[in-house]
Amino acid sequence: MALTIGIDVGGTKVAAGVVDEDGTIVEHLRRPTPAQEPEKVAEVIADVVRELSGRHPVDAVGLGAAGFVDETRSVLRFAPNLAWREEPLRKKVGELIDLPIVVENDANAMAWGEYRFGAARGESHVVCVTVGTGIGGGLVLDGRLYRGRWGMGAEWGHMQVVPGGRPCGCGNRGCWERYASGSALVMDVRDAIAADPARGARLLELAGGSLENAEGEVVAEAARAGDEVALEAFALLARWLGQGLADLAAILDPGCFVIGGGVSHSADLFFDAAREEYTRRVVGRGHRPLADIRIAELGPSAGLVGAADLARLG
Amino acid sequence: MALTIGIDVGGTKVAAGVVDEDGTIVEHLRRPTPAQEPEKVAEVIADVVRELSGRHPVDAVGLGAAGFVDETRSVLRFAPNLAWREEPLRKKVGELIDLPIVVENDANAMAWGEYRFGAARGESHVVCVTVGTGIGGGLVLDGRLYRGRWGMGAEWGHMQVVPGGRPCGCGNRGCWERYASGSALVMDVRDAIAADPARGARLLELAGGSLENAEGEVVAEAARAGDEVALEAFALLARWLGQGLADLAAILDPGCFVIGGGVSHSADLFFDAAREEYTRRVVGRGHRPLADIRIAELGPSAGLVGAADLARLG
Repeated sequence: MALTIGIDVGGTKVAAGVVDEDGTIVEHLRRPTPAQEPEKVAEVIADVVRELSGRHPVDAVGLGAAGFVDETRSVLRFAPNLAWREEPLRKKVGELIDLPIVVENDANAMAWGEYRFGAARGESHVVCVTVGTGIGGGLVLDGRLYRGRWGMGAEWGHMQVVPGGRPCGCGNRGCWERYASGSALVMDVRDAIAADPARGARLLELAGGSLENAEGEVVAEAARAGDEVALEAFALLARWLGQGLADLAAILDPGCFVIGGGVSHSADLFFDAAREEYTRRVVGRGHRPLADIRIAELGPSAGLVGAADLARLG
Repeated sequence: MALTIGIDVGGTKVAAGVVDEDGTIVEHLRRPTPAQEPEKVAEVIADVVRELSGRHPVDAVGLGAAGFVDETRSVLRFAPNLAWREEPLRKKVGELIDLPIVVENDANAMAWGEYRFGAARGESHVVCVTVGTGIGGGLVLDGRLYRGRWGMGAEWGHMQVVPGGRPCGCGNRGCWERYASGSALVMDVRDAIAADPARGARLLELAGGSLENAEGEVVAEAARAGDEVALEAFALLARWLGQGLADLAAILDPGCFVIGGGVSHSADLFFDAAREEYTRRVVGRGHRPLADIRIAELGPSAGLVGAADLARLG
């Protein structure tokens, strides 16, 4: 059975896997990302490929990375977490190993993984929303990964949902990911505690005394313990998530949505409310079939598995 | 040369044309729409087809109509201006004439016309924004008309741009078409005059004493005459149009936008400002090619020409 390597190049780690035609990971490997030396990332990738291809007969390599990948699937034009600008990643890795390589946006790769082997199997039109620190996106239309004219589509984390709203790392304000993500949860509880410090006791205790470097998980933990401030933050996230899905349905009319990313592990805290909001907001409700909303099934390996499969397809 | 008939079924008139393979209209015909008797619309369409096909050898008929058309291109599920609900238009017309028929959303047909024969010729990824009383949309991806899973995509007039904003006919609030359309222009000047009636003298005069039934054209006329309230309304429209295009670029990454519809005839009053706002807002600016923004070229016949061409393609 033909094998390929999928690699997820993240800000902290390089996760690689040998993947078969059914999306099964045959071997898994991890290395720290030399984030301070972006020019060394290609070397780490090549090392990992050499090691894995020494043990398995592989045909190709798929690289998923957070950032804007150009339409030739070669160059990372802009990767905020890796300090890459116009990085010719395919060329650099290609000089070190002798296998066909494709480079893909990580959320695209994840969407492809869920479409081929995960929650969206059997659907032809899939909108994937990766809810982590921010919001990533991947889009499958008529059974093909949609990249856009220049490879930069599906960046719905940066549609504006609040004019003049919260500042975003992209330079705009009011982007969707400032209201429906792990960092939005933390901002919501911080805002609530700033307005009424007495309400923050439990959350601050869970966060070790400060929300300065807190992540969404702390808010989820507090919500599960019944903390009102945390529950309100999840209610807000659900509302914004549902509204954004309604916007995407008006634009794309998908057959299903897949919600992935770290925050999706707390689906019990927002899923039903988000679906209700979506149902209440989608244009033409009552006169259209409603797209299914599903939670991702492949977990953190979705990107790796999707990148490997895209490499197989060439 | 193969000929087909394209028909634009509007709220007030049925416009039909015999169209050749180059998108040229060989003969043009109009009838009033029996809007009060929606069950008679199929008869009017059949009459027009009989008349035109008596004089020309035509192969097929394409019907464009404002509303949600199902994915089989047969049923108008919901057409606000024609009081149609789940109307099996293809079947009804098909019982009266003996030619292949396709039914298409009017903005989709218009986008296809502009893609094939108008402003977007040669582009593969086209986002068409029809700015009239409301906002319609049509989408060409990789050279194919994109309809969505159930035929209801490209309804970007109803993405929410202002939470809790102006009420929309769709039942939601804050839809894009409430801020960047002909009716938005009228709402903007009404709001301004309500706040300071002294500023409204010239506009009211142009509107015949009342803005009750005014349309965007009145505001355009006043703006061209230098009226400040009208110019401010166009500045607002430009801002919202540019922001919405930036949102659509984040989601779809098209190679070009085409702006059509009645308001596009006043492009001199908003185009440059809209493009500036788009350029300022689009995510990843500086790290991505910028989609061209173009004004539609085919005018009011774009829908008819597009529907005829879609009928030819079957």
